[in-house]
Amino acid sequence: MAAPAMETFRPEEIPDLEKSGQAERAQWVLNAPEPPGAWRELIHSGRETFLRPCGNKLLALKNQPGPEQVVLFLQGIFPILVWCRSYTVKKFKNDLLAGLTIASLCIPQSIGYATLAKLDPQYGLYTSVVPPLIYAVMGTSREIAIGPVAVVSLLLPSMIQKLQDPVADPVSYTKLVLTATFFAGIFQAAFGLFRLGFLVDFLSHAAIVGFVAGAAIVIGLQQLKGLLGISHFTNKTDIISVGEAVWSSVHHHWSPYNFILGCSFLIFILFTRFLGRRKKRLFWLPAIAPLLSVILSTLIVFLTRADKHGIKIVKHIKGGLNPSSLHQLQLDGPQVGEVAKAGLVVAVVALTEAIAVGRSFSSMKGYNLDGNKEMVAMGFMNVIGSFTSCYVATGSFSRTAVNFSAGCETLVSNIVMAITVIISLQLFTKLLYFTPTAILASIILSALPGLIDLSAAYNIWKIDKLDFLTCIAAFFGVLFVSVEIGLLVAVGISFAKIILISIRPGTETLGRIPGTDVFCDINQYPMASKTPGVVIIRVKSAVLCFANANIIKESIMKWVTEDQAEDTKANVKGPNYKLVILDTSGLMDIDTSGIASLQELHKNLTSHGIELAIANPRWQVIHKLRLANFVGKIGGRVYLTVGEAMDNAAAPDAERATIQA
Amino acid sequence: MAAPAMETFRPEEIPDLEKSGQAERAQWVLNAPEPPGAWRELIHSGRETFLRPCGNKLLALKNQPGPEQVVLFLQGIFPILVWCRSYTVKKFKNDLLAGLTIASLCIPQSIGYATLAKLDPQYGLYTSVVPPLIYAVMGTSREIAIGPVAVVSLLLPSMIQKLQDPVADPVSYTKLVLTATFFAGIFQAAFGLFRLGFLVDFLSHAAIVGFVAGAAIVIGLQQLKGLLGISHFTNKTDIISVGEAVWSSVHHHWSPYNFILGCSFLIFILFTRFLGRRKKRLFWLPAIAPLLSVILSTLIVFLTRADKHGIKIVKHIKGGLNPSSLHQLQLDGPQVGEVAKAGLVVAVVALTEAIAVGRSFSSMKGYNLDGNKEMVAMGFMNVIGSFTSCYVATGSFSRTAVNFSAGCETLVSNIVMAITVIISLQLFTKLLYFTPTAILASIILSALPGLIDLSAAYNIWKIDKLDFLTCIAAFFGVLFVSVEIGLLVAVGISFAKIILISIRPGTETLGRIPGTDVFCDINQYPMASKTPGVVIIRVKSAVLCFANANIIKESIMKWVTEDQAEDTKANVKGPNYKLVILDTSGLMDIDTSGIASLQELHKNLTSHGIELAIANPRWQVIHKLRLANFVGKIGGRVYLTVGEAMDNAAAPDAERATIQA
Repeated sequence: MAAPAMETFRPEEIPDLEKSGQAERAQWVLNAPEPPGAWRELIHSGRETFLRPCGNKLLALKNQPGPEQVVLFLQGIFPILVWCRSYTVKKFKNDLLAGLTIASLCIPQSIGYATLAKLDPQYGLYTSVVPPLIYAVMGTSREIAIGPVAVVSLLLPSMIQKLQDPVADPVSYTKLVLTATFFAGIFQAAFGLFRLGFLVDFLSHAAIVGFVAGAAIVIGLQQLKGLLGISHFTNKTDIISVGEAVWSSVHHHWSPYNFILGCSFLIFILFTRFLGRRKKRLFWLPAIAPLLSVILSTLIVFLTRADKHGIKIVKHIKGGLNPSSLHQLQLDGPQVGEVAKAGLVVAVVALTEAIAVGRSFSSMKGYNLDGNKEMVAMGFMNVIGSFTSCYVATGSFSRTAVNFSAGCETLVSNIVMAITVIISLQLFTKLLYFTPTAILASIILSALPGLIDLSAAYNIWKIDKLDFLTCIAAFFGVLFVSVEIGLLVAVGISFAKIILISIRPGTETLGRIPGTDVFCDINQYPMASKTPGVVIIRVKSAVLCFANANIIKESIMKWVTEDQAEDTKANVKGPNYKLVILDTSGLMDIDTSGIASLQELHKNLTSHGIELAIANPRWQVIHKLRLANFVGKIGGRVYLTVGEAMDNAAAPDAERATIQA
Repeated sequence: MAAPAMETFRPEEIPDLEKSGQAERAQWVLNAPEPPGAWRELIHSGRETFLRPCGNKLLALKNQPGPEQVVLFLQGIFPILVWCRSYTVKKFKNDLLAGLTIASLCIPQSIGYATLAKLDPQYGLYTSVVPPLIYAVMGTSREIAIGPVAVVSLLLPSMIQKLQDPVADPVSYTKLVLTATFFAGIFQAAFGLFRLGFLVDFLSHAAIVGFVAGAAIVIGLQQLKGLLGISHFTNKTDIISVGEAVWSSVHHHWSPYNFILGCSFLIFILFTRFLGRRKKRLFWLPAIAPLLSVILSTLIVFLTRADKHGIKIVKHIKGGLNPSSLHQLQLDGPQVGEVAKAGLVVAVVALTEAIAVGRSFSSMKGYNLDGNKEMVAMGFMNVIGSFTSCYVATGSFSRTAVNFSAGCETLVSNIVMAITVIISLQLFTKLLYFTPTAILASIILSALPGLIDLSAAYNIWKIDKLDFLTCIAAFFGVLFVSVEIGLLVAVGISFAKIILISIRPGTETLGRIPGTDVFCDINQYPMASKTPGVVIIRVKSAVLCFANANIIKESIMKWVTEDQAEDTKANVKGPNYKLVILDTSGLMDIDTSGIASLQELHKNLTSHGIELAIANPRWQVIHKLRLANFVGKIGGRVYLTVGEAMDNAAAPDAERATIQA
């Protein structure tokens, strides 16, 4: 890097007219109107977030006659009333095709995910009936396919089984899962109604990528139970416990037939996916491959009676429509707090997944999702789901993608899917008696590679190393400790990173960009030139506060005094500094400790014969500096820009007073 | 507020020469050298913090001959070797006077604080012997008076008595307190050696003001036990428990004589303080008033044998020098983790108080304290103290102030004080048999008003409402819950405030300041003028990240689209926006979620026919935007300043390309 050129500093050359303009502008800085107080700002941002959108709608409603008010209100809650008017037969044909396609994928996946959630298989099917129907009338997305998903099916048992062992007492366990579903729905609806959509943003992109990848591996490990036909398995989800369980089982009792059967069909499903990618016209092949596998493998087992030779089968699945589960909800008792907490965590994770899925497909089709409305819809579908034997449903990434490529037009495809599942529940559950569990495991396994997004992880690594740290922390947290710890660590690191960046106690030196009056970081712009006798320093942090003010003060002092010492030592006829300009344009706020440090800085600089000037302070900062009487202490040396500070601040106090008067 | 004037936007008027200069500068923005990576920056700041100061000293050492190296090294550790050379008889006279004055204050306070810490009275005196002597040879402050202090004496038992009841088993309790002292010393020395001085800054000024005021009231409440002569008292420190204990005792058994005696001497001490403030020459009167009170009241009780009538007395104080307590340290066992935690908390609080005290007096005399060296000195004195029956000592505010006004010159006054205490321990402890406990309570009570700094609290309220929230949260936390909770809440709120400010999802609109090319917030500068067709937006937060990027994106879109709608509705011939300039000068960093949101913003703006330009990005931000290929997506519309963005960005892509080429 070339050393910045030196430029001579001659304040006396500035014409008088220009100077008086600058003085006037310095007064503008000092006499800015009072910024809104903390309360007013809080109330304002609260009103912006919560009331304004509702207010606008209420205003729109008020201007309408009575019956139309009702219609508009209903249309606001049930978007289906709007889009069903323009629904056509052609659209229905597309939706029918898409709905049947996702149903064929959904049925085997639902049974598998229910097993993952340690519930009876029919609960997965129930969850593919009611929630999609509710969402179809309330949701605003057009592509999202609702039902049980892998991550939620992993997260729920990992929290609930601490309260109730699913093997020892499956009935009580199921009750707790349904109660957690109820709470999750309540939380989701509340987030939407109180416009707390931003809570979903608290899981950063990087955290989600790491978390989902970790969860995918954990889910895959859980499938080893079905794939190897192991009877005794661990309840823990971390890789070490599962590894030990698998290792000890492999030495004792496992059935190679299960493994061979599962692997063959896994290869079949993966092969169809490969084909589907190569030829876009064959998109339906990977979508129905799981159902085909179920049918084929069931037939094989039925014909060969392989279940007598160690192949584990699903056996009885309770048929018939969703039974009511209202009486199963346990809203009192000692565990209700823990269950509600589990519901909250699941609610946030489920919403994060649904909204990520919804947004990515809506932006492809070029329309906007209303995040808060989505949350209300998801909340209602889960509350009503918890009344009808469903566990937490959300938008599934794999099925939504299939729905999209199958050409769905509206949420009618979800209705078609739900009806197909109803028919299966009524007629075909008996046929699933001989379905091998290894096939369900291989269907879940086949969906997992899509959850591990290596290219996203690489992108994060490339752009932001600290973000990548969040990502791998979430990944390893899920893999080696537990699902919740992984989430917690990811959120913790994300916020720690914000604090770190905001209070980073660094400073940078600014120089003049040639041909302008703009002053920039001399490391970023090597062509920027320093002015002898003046140091322009910008604080790298966003807040000058208790946590960094003292270090920043000391580093500025060290910088000013040591740099001078070096200049003198090297016998370069370096001029002594006369002026330190603090560019505060990047400073969002300052607190009482920060102001105290600035006062000490000024005192120390004065004892070295150096003046301190402030350039371009923000509203809150200049307001607080004035309140603390700091402006008076530095002789009113506050300017609009670094350039004006340089032109004026070096003049002695008396002379400046005459100019500004 | 006057509506900002409108200014016409005519990019075509800019001369060609100027334009090519601007184009070149835009290239500078884009082709900045690569900023240091996360690792390099981490290593650099680590080196700056830990190695550089040592390195400089080592370098200085290397250039010296052998024996002088040793001398310099020893002088670095023991500053007394430097200042004792210029020590004079005149200085000693001043130090002797000051030392005797603080000794007279220290003896009764030490006994009282030991009682507050639920230790035998002699431990307070021990703590006023060894730590001051160690500090005198290692410390860099000249005024600080070392010994037991009120806040630490309250904090220690509040944490240790959870592990061991001081009434049921005082011997084990004392062992744990000494062990905690040992750990506190180790932590303090480690902070200093590893240059972690900044950890002390994590208690913000506001938090300390609130915490100390709350602690003062809690300490005062604890003194009610001695003042009212209550036998059964609560172990808890919160105001409600203490109030209940006092209330129930007042109904059963208390002795009014204790109260009358204590209050009379409290009034006497406060009156002498009043006199001392009125006449500066009488500064010694408030300083020796406590000792006078002790002597007088002891005499009264001895002569009247008032202890037979319900006056509670100190009784036996073990005389003689500090015994060794090496064998009492419990460095194994199940409680060692908890004790170490208590040691850490006490270490931080003690250091915070000592450094606050040291800095305020050193800045009065105009010299600098080396924070890290101070910590090492404090650490050593506490470690050695824990070997010699001392509990945690630190710099006392009240005694340091007395030391200062008594005209101390060096740390010799601490040595004088320690020797005086040694003499008292050897000769006078038997004389303290009849000292009434109510007097000790009134001596502690008399020191408390100095801890409640109402004017500082008012100043915080005036300058920063959120800081004030930290302050009162610490205050009420200490008062109503417990000492640790008060600390924890204060630290928590302080950091939550940083997060809140850094990710505050607000935006502000900028306008041109008349007579300049500078663009500022139009709320802060009402004279700033908007340019038709262009919106200049600056994000209010410091980091565009997962937590705020989405909300900011939506608010910009709402702003742009709604503002346009309003203009059209009001029939003002408002021009449609053609350009949104995002001033990113305040943005310290951006993460992958932030970049994704900017990409969506650009897509949405494009669909409204609006261009997006970036002005003045910081080093990290432009680097990441380039890595994510965002710069290419917005057609290279990145400029050094808002003004240049305005001049250039409106031109169509093709034309801009020719200019820049």
